[in-house]
Amino acid sequence: MLVYCVSVQVKPGHEEDFRTATGINRLETMKEKGVLRFDVLQSQDDPSRFMLYEVYRSEEAVAAHRETPHYLKWRSVVAPWMARDRQGEKFKPLYPEGDMEW
Amino acid sequence: MLVYCVSVQVKPGHEEDFRTATGINRLETMKEKGVLRFDVLQSQDDPSRFMLYEVYRSEEAVAAHRETPHYLKWRSVVAPWMARDRQGEKFKPLYPEGDMEW
Repeated sequence: MLVYCVSVQVKPGHEEDFRTATGINRLETMKEKGVLRFDVLQSQDDPSRFMLYEVYRSEEAVAAHRETPHYLKWRSVVAPWMARDRQGEKFKPLYPEGDMEW
Repeated sequence: MLVYCVSVQVKPGHEEDFRTATGINRLETMKEKGVLRFDVLQSQDDPSRFMLYEVYRSEEAVAAHRETPHYLKWRSVVAPWMARDRQGEKFKPLYPEGDMEW
């Protein structure tokens, strides 16, 4: 199991665009059997800043996600709204332990 | 509802200490009625780096958490192991919507 925390900075004025496109992507992503969570957060201090909290069963699940039509479409749709490259950091979950609580 | 993403850097050699102390704190924290999640993650690139993913029902729940004996004890126990100040960022959850999926 692994977790990606992805930090996103959008250009001012594209907050709602990003929210909508990411909500659509999330709906499809949550149907993937290798995906346990896909939380979308917006910074309280800077509304142009978002965090994606993505929990996968395996590296293979990450690779599979990145080949899905919804991910590829999302990536291309949001590209012009990015203020900078997305920054993803990979983590190993310590707690909760096991799949059930995710 | 709000989410804190707390970034922690421990001094090398204190990774297991931090994991154990934080696991104990988490057990008690998850009993608080204002706490929906309290995930503990360890960076894959740098084992001295941790992320706490804390989901609260309200600002009041955050304030209540910070007065609990387990939080105060944890804070004091881990203090000597910190390589730098913890960095917390506050987010508004966009998805999932509602309490049930947290």
